[in-house]
Amino acid sequence: MMDKFFKPRSVAIIGASRNPEKVGYVILKNFVSGFKGKIYPINPKADEILGLKAYPSVLNVEDEIDLAVVCVKPEIANKVVEECGKKGIKAIVMITSGYREIGSEGAARERELKEIIERYGIRLIGPNCIGVYVPKTGVDTLFIQDYKMKKPGNGGVAFISQSGAFGLAMLDWMADEGMGISKFVSYGNATDVDESTLLEYLAKDKETKVIAMYLEGIKDGKRFMEAVKKARKSKDIVVFKGGKHKAGQKAAMTHTGSLAGNYLIFSGVLRQLGCVEAKSVEELFDFSQAFCNSEKEKGKKIAIITNGGGFGVIASDFAKDYGLELADFEKKTVDALKDVLPEYASIHNPLDLIGDADAERYKKALEIVSKDKNVSGILVITLLQTVTLDAEVVDVISSFKRKCKKPLVVVASGSEYTKLMVKSLQKEKVAAYPTVERGIKALSKLLM
Amino acid sequence: MMDKFFKPRSVAIIGASRNPEKVGYVILKNFVSGFKGKIYPINPKADEILGLKAYPSVLNVEDEIDLAVVCVKPEIANKVVEECGKKGIKAIVMITSGYREIGSEGAARERELKEIIERYGIRLIGPNCIGVYVPKTGVDTLFIQDYKMKKPGNGGVAFISQSGAFGLAMLDWMADEGMGISKFVSYGNATDVDESTLLEYLAKDKETKVIAMYLEGIKDGKRFMEAVKKARKSKDIVVFKGGKHKAGQKAAMTHTGSLAGNYLIFSGVLRQLGCVEAKSVEELFDFSQAFCNSEKEKGKKIAIITNGGGFGVIASDFAKDYGLELADFEKKTVDALKDVLPEYASIHNPLDLIGDADAERYKKALEIVSKDKNVSGILVITLLQTVTLDAEVVDVISSFKRKCKKPLVVVASGSEYTKLMVKSLQKEKVAAYPTVERGIKALSKLLM
Repeated sequence: MMDKFFKPRSVAIIGASRNPEKVGYVILKNFVSGFKGKIYPINPKADEILGLKAYPSVLNVEDEIDLAVVCVKPEIANKVVEECGKKGIKAIVMITSGYREIGSEGAARERELKEIIERYGIRLIGPNCIGVYVPKTGVDTLFIQDYKMKKPGNGGVAFISQSGAFGLAMLDWMADEGMGISKFVSYGNATDVDESTLLEYLAKDKETKVIAMYLEGIKDGKRFMEAVKKARKSKDIVVFKGGKHKAGQKAAMTHTGSLAGNYLIFSGVLRQLGCVEAKSVEELFDFSQAFCNSEKEKGKKIAIITNGGGFGVIASDFAKDYGLELADFEKKTVDALKDVLPEYASIHNPLDLIGDADAERYKKALEIVSKDKNVSGILVITLLQTVTLDAEVVDVISSFKRKCKKPLVVVASGSEYTKLMVKSLQKEKVAAYPTVERGIKALSKLLM
Repeated sequence: MMDKFFKPRSVAIIGASRNPEKVGYVILKNFVSGFKGKIYPINPKADEILGLKAYPSVLNVEDEIDLAVVCVKPEIANKVVEECGKKGIKAIVMITSGYREIGSEGAARERELKEIIERYGIRLIGPNCIGVYVPKTGVDTLFIQDYKMKKPGNGGVAFISQSGAFGLAMLDWMADEGMGISKFVSYGNATDVDESTLLEYLAKDKETKVIAMYLEGIKDGKRFMEAVKKARKSKDIVVFKGGKHKAGQKAAMTHTGSLAGNYLIFSGVLRQLGCVEAKSVEELFDFSQAFCNSEKEKGKKIAIITNGGGFGVIASDFAKDYGLELADFEKKTVDALKDVLPEYASIHNPLDLIGDADAERYKKALEIVSKDKNVSGILVITLLQTVTLDAEVVDVISSFKRKCKKPLVVVASGSEYTKLMVKSLQKEKVAAYPTVERGIKALSKLLM
């Protein structure tokens, strides 16, 4: 059933518009650009929109409709949902706002909505939400102008956010950092589908390796914990909690009406269930990327390989800060490295390949260091602002990573050229980060 | 004297080359592109390079030379410095490596170098360094291909890094984040000019408002502390220390031969002298940017203004984490805000301007909130992925900031469109950050 939200065969856009400034235009255009199934624009005042025949109501469409996206005015939204019920549509993404969040009039409208969907057995995401984005199938209800945000490509992280604006900003940010996602859902007022429903679905979703969640509060704690427990059997789960302290909790109450609850208890329970807690937005995605792209292992001794001494120093400090230790290299490792490095280089961990290192030197060093039995995980720092290191290092690291059984994380700090390398590494399923601290933190989670 | 490094009237590039792959070509090209004074390429085998007459030695140049950049082979480097002495050149940036850092042979060479510069009264930055970059005057010895790194534009932060590769990566990163600098110096082996010399100079430098330093160790602790004390009279100083823990200290010893010393003592002394310590690379630049672009004030009560509730929740949590509190708005503030916001909005701190806020709503809210006497500082969150908020908000915030006497920090998370806004804000001297955590941390330093 829930599949209809993420891989429908046909979609009706109810409230589709010819006016490029309207939500109903942007959403229709999203589907026209990326969705492979049938698309039915619903608009009683139009014959055709974006080259597609428009219908006055879903009841005028002869074929079966898997999913309806509703973006009409609140005054007629419930009526439209009723029509969906009559048509036999079982999945609705309801963008329309003007429900519970606007006060008592909206709350009454929301009770009516709930009654309708229960009567027809409809599953509904929203209302008052930005909905669903699935890069692989082209389902995309994000009603934002193209020039304002980029959207992530396909990948193994499912991202769930009750908060809409937060979700949008994060998708845009993920796209910029080169991360890919399997599914994104922002579920707004959660009249029907909520965080637990989504967890239950994602637990069985083959496209999803890691579930990343931004949560302010939880509707039904017991059900949520059950859903987490089940999902943890096959997925990594990373949670970022809003409303940790009193100030944040008060804000959360106003924002989504969520009872944020006792943070320490929440945090403890999550840990017991094997979830990883992120303390910031960056951690939410950095840890998700790590679990998605790298092996895990028990142990805390790492090797640091770098072409800049300063970064080796900083990485050593952060390793200590985040509970990791520098491995002592075995004698055979040191001996083998001597053949690879210039004679004036000293062989230590962090291993400084020196500023004139090229991709080949990285390759040899990686092969030698990864065989060291004292080393549980590897942090590779590549400063691409040096003269001799170029794009080839992406191939070297990607090929190496495919056969490496130990956790491996790459760090490269810089602007355009460097970012292109970081994105290329991520495309090759190598966990790559823009700062040493973020890389070390991610590695520490892989070595728990 | 030290002025000759940063605003020379004439420069000799000793080791200038016609081969685009050589350091001596890249450096000459840098000067040709941006430097307004006279440029003398020195190369005994060339008549002309990049359209400029080349000379076999500085001794063949008739005019006065303020600054020499040396990038010849180590075997002839000291001889070349001796010629500079004879020519009366008083400032040398020595890129050439092959000194102390390669062992005993190099150490002997370095002793000889020191003897020569002392004999002629030359001030020398390096050897084994990447040198100096001054966007305003076009002095630029960074020998990296253009496509590999971007360089920051002009601004009020002076950035000093002993480590070269670290410095390059950071410049590239700063450029990407839109930060500007007054001067960059990486001083390598510090045979002559070191961190204290530079502090002494920058203390009096009108172009510099904030001094950002990456330090592994300090050559002369007492002199350094004196220099810091003096510089603090007119500048903010932010320090990021490498080699905090044993692992990092060992690495620092190998890297720059620096005795990192006891970190806690170092940290305590810095604090007493009124420096701000950064715990990461991001903090080094985030705090520097804050001091450069915002007012400071005593107090810890802030107002948070946002167009996304989730970001308000997160910001409230981080405020608590970093020692800030949410101000209670005065009654007249709440009353005035009621006229500005949609009727279903609830007036709280964090102030949610709601997802349909436009620049005008920000303008009104900023004016009202900044007058509240309970508010010491303001965090403005702008989610530009919403439909109604656009570039106009940059003008609104910039104009407002020019008359606002309270610390003000902006947060905008996202990719291209958002980053352009962040950069535009920075150009208008507004402290702007890509994540809530970084914005809150910066604000907390302005409110100490």
